[in-house]
Amino acid sequence: MDTNLSPQKSAYAELARLQLRLHRFQHLESMLSWDRAAMMPPKGNEARAAAVAELEGLMHRLRTDPQQAEWLQKAEAEPLDELERANLREIRRRWRQANALPERLVEAQSLAAARCEHAWRRQRPANDWNGFVENLREVVRLAREEAQLLSDALGLSRYDTLIDRFEPGMRVAEIDRIFGDLKQWMPGLIVRVRDKQAKEAVQQPTGPFPIAKQRQMGHALMKLLGFDFEAGRLDESTHPFSGGVPEDVRLTTRYREEDFTRSLMATIHETGHARFEQNLSREWLGQPIARARSFGIHESQSLSFEMQLARSRAFMELLAPIVRECFGEQPAFAPDNLYRLFTRVKAENLIRVEADELTYPMHVILRYEIEKPLIEGEIEVEDIPALWDEKMRSMLGLDTRGNYADGCMQDVHWSESLFGYFPDYTLGAMYAAQWFGTIRKQVPDLDERIRKGELGPIFTWLRENIWLAGSRWETPELVARASGEPLNTAHFRRHLESRYL
Amino acid sequence: MDTNLSPQKSAYAELARLQLRLHRFQHLESMLSWDRAAMMPPKGNEARAAAVAELEGLMHRLRTDPQQAEWLQKAEAEPLDELERANLREIRRRWRQANALPERLVEAQSLAAARCEHAWRRQRPANDWNGFVENLREVVRLAREEAQLLSDALGLSRYDTLIDRFEPGMRVAEIDRIFGDLKQWMPGLIVRVRDKQAKEAVQQPTGPFPIAKQRQMGHALMKLLGFDFEAGRLDESTHPFSGGVPEDVRLTTRYREEDFTRSLMATIHETGHARFEQNLSREWLGQPIARARSFGIHESQSLSFEMQLARSRAFMELLAPIVRECFGEQPAFAPDNLYRLFTRVKAENLIRVEADELTYPMHVILRYEIEKPLIEGEIEVEDIPALWDEKMRSMLGLDTRGNYADGCMQDVHWSESLFGYFPDYTLGAMYAAQWFGTIRKQVPDLDERIRKGELGPIFTWLRENIWLAGSRWETPELVARASGEPLNTAHFRRHLESRYL
Repeated sequence: MDTNLSPQKSAYAELARLQLRLHRFQHLESMLSWDRAAMMPPKGNEARAAAVAELEGLMHRLRTDPQQAEWLQKAEAEPLDELERANLREIRRRWRQANALPERLVEAQSLAAARCEHAWRRQRPANDWNGFVENLREVVRLAREEAQLLSDALGLSRYDTLIDRFEPGMRVAEIDRIFGDLKQWMPGLIVRVRDKQAKEAVQQPTGPFPIAKQRQMGHALMKLLGFDFEAGRLDESTHPFSGGVPEDVRLTTRYREEDFTRSLMATIHETGHARFEQNLSREWLGQPIARARSFGIHESQSLSFEMQLARSRAFMELLAPIVRECFGEQPAFAPDNLYRLFTRVKAENLIRVEADELTYPMHVILRYEIEKPLIEGEIEVEDIPALWDEKMRSMLGLDTRGNYADGCMQDVHWSESLFGYFPDYTLGAMYAAQWFGTIRKQVPDLDERIRKGELGPIFTWLRENIWLAGSRWETPELVARASGEPLNTAHFRRHLESRYL
Repeated sequence: MDTNLSPQKSAYAELARLQLRLHRFQHLESMLSWDRAAMMPPKGNEARAAAVAELEGLMHRLRTDPQQAEWLQKAEAEPLDELERANLREIRRRWRQANALPERLVEAQSLAAARCEHAWRRQRPANDWNGFVENLREVVRLAREEAQLLSDALGLSRYDTLIDRFEPGMRVAEIDRIFGDLKQWMPGLIVRVRDKQAKEAVQQPTGPFPIAKQRQMGHALMKLLGFDFEAGRLDESTHPFSGGVPEDVRLTTRYREEDFTRSLMATIHETGHARFEQNLSREWLGQPIARARSFGIHESQSLSFEMQLARSRAFMELLAPIVRECFGEQPAFAPDNLYRLFTRVKAENLIRVEADELTYPMHVILRYEIEKPLIEGEIEVEDIPALWDEKMRSMLGLDTRGNYADGCMQDVHWSESLFGYFPDYTLGAMYAAQWFGTIRKQVPDLDERIRKGELGPIFTWLRENIWLAGSRWETPELVARASGEPLNTAHFRRHLESRYL
């Protein structure tokens, strides 16, 4: 990195050096966060929470180091090239966000989230909403305080400020427009697809599927998809995620002996995140410009891998032999049947992470419509279960009354104060559809190539347009450069209709 | 912890608060060090080294925070109780040690050690001494600089200052006396025992021993020995160790399919370390007084478990059923035969960590006699192989010429700049023999109890005399309180003669 810092650019160089220090502390934080989810025994939690809060306090003091105000001003006048200027833009954005929050609040949030999430691990299986709400109340109280402080500093609405943490530049107004559009045509599409699929026969694979074999299959697919095992690992946690650092990506999945399909798709999904990290610009590593532009763009990579590529009919030709090698021959493993399995719409499903591609956005919109008024102070945590029940009934026709474990307690996000994050899952799905629309135009025989295992053109396009771009451009420019137009829900609709109708 | 800090004791309270912060940063460092050995893929090393060096620099600045000079002076005059005064003594010792070293040196040592250790992982199997020596030279150069600075500050010889890091108060003069005593009677004892054992028939267990079963056996033994799995884990690494933090102890072992005995004893050994950590005073956790007094005292716990308890004839009655449950019935699993197996002297063995109880001290003395002149500047790294070969020949009659992998490159310690550490292994063995000498006096039917699985009296004695004591007393007082006399090699000799003759 230091090669990018010529000595005369002193204020910019100081800012970049501070970012590099932060990057190193983030390394510690990120690895310990992975450890907590994948490795840590329960009695380690209190000491871990205290240690991480100490680190976060330190990082907060670095992020808000008042010297930066002067450096930022001076750097403006320095002769920076285009990339340095983009990096400076990202540094300034981070500085403004961090500066709005006092260290006391950052530490309190870290502790409250650790406590809430840790208790949730036991409370969820026990369906213990009353226990959970005690911790969640404090998490929400602190999140509202955070949103109010950010709102004062940035001049945005409270919930906008939380969205902006994950999807810079995205606003409630635009999400309302996008989700409003989806709500117009998706319910009808779901009905038509269910009617069509009701006439199709799908053969269920016969288990059990030994976990050691599932692990072997996951590794084989990660290799096929280009994951670098010298620079990352696959482990297990309650909730699959992609963590670690670009130089050492830590993926997790979870296995069930009776069903291999979920761990398989979870692994492919996280591999999409991982390849983004493993292919971020090495030259700029440690600087904000060499990080993913947003969580929605990150999700567009996991969903490019999982939804656009791995659930396509063509990919089943690659998948079938791998499945057979791990679990032997079964009629259910024929590519046509695997395709029906992996595109089956299960509208009776209560769990977001197990939802199919078509109903998934409904799960997201439901959460969005609850957390938005929750942060704005229009509802309280006690109102969540009734709202959840009502929306599950009206959007998907499902009854969740009294079932907190598979209802409003199913996600880890709220425990961890990740309000404003959920919309990114569906934004990511729409970006991914737009990327693949573009790739298909540029590579007309894409399906034929996928069938043959020639995935190079996909990886090349993603590397050049998304991975290496990092945060060089703000999102609208990134999207326009990659696909020739702004985010357009028509791509997502076209993809779903062509796959499911 | 804060309950121990009454507000009027302000200087002492400030010092204790700083120790608590350090304890939290050590948590991060300790977990990442475990991760690096047990989890991290190779390409993660550079980024990890940079991140840890950043953390170590920060910790060094905390340790040498100049405010402490005034606080230490003021605290002397404050009305402290006996425990607080002991804690203050430990704080002062740490402060003096840390203060002697500039941050630049601490960071350079961290980076050089990470580079050397990481390359060693590949260089050792490749027998690549020439590659290794390039990195080791820098590690030694920095270690000498460290020793010189500590020597100037503490008024000790250079090598004494490095020993003092691990075994406070211990000096070359005393080690020379102890090791000189061992060298007088051990070689003769080894010859007598080999002659005796040459006439004994030992049945070798027939493998392979599936690693999953070895893991199961390790867990069963850890349970028997009281390890709390809610507050720790067992994993694998090239070199078994006990790491993590008292609240979350991370043990490692290593498995070979053809031999279960080594992983078993390595696991029991590390469990001894773990129980010490898991039983340190909770009330004082985060303060120096609630940490092990020294590495030698720590080793006395692992060797109490492995050598005094687990390799005793009585323990074989507990071990045999567990071995049979994992690997089925074999004549070799009879308690008498297991005892012969686990007390077999293998003088042809080149590897310290695989050495038997009787020849192990020779391996230690050899290293001590090389690193002492190396640090004092009397020899250079290039001289190590020839010295190693010569001492292996004269002490154990073994030829190591050209075999660096199983010779002077076998240990991780020198890569990691752990000069002054090796003597602790044998000091630990002697302390352990002294503890069990005392326990046997207090519990005359100890072997009968062990045979029945009544290990409680051992754990109670260790908890009360060693674990809870932590660093409350300096080592000579700790030893005298626990066993009624100073460290006395006669206990070790009596133990070895009664077990092996």
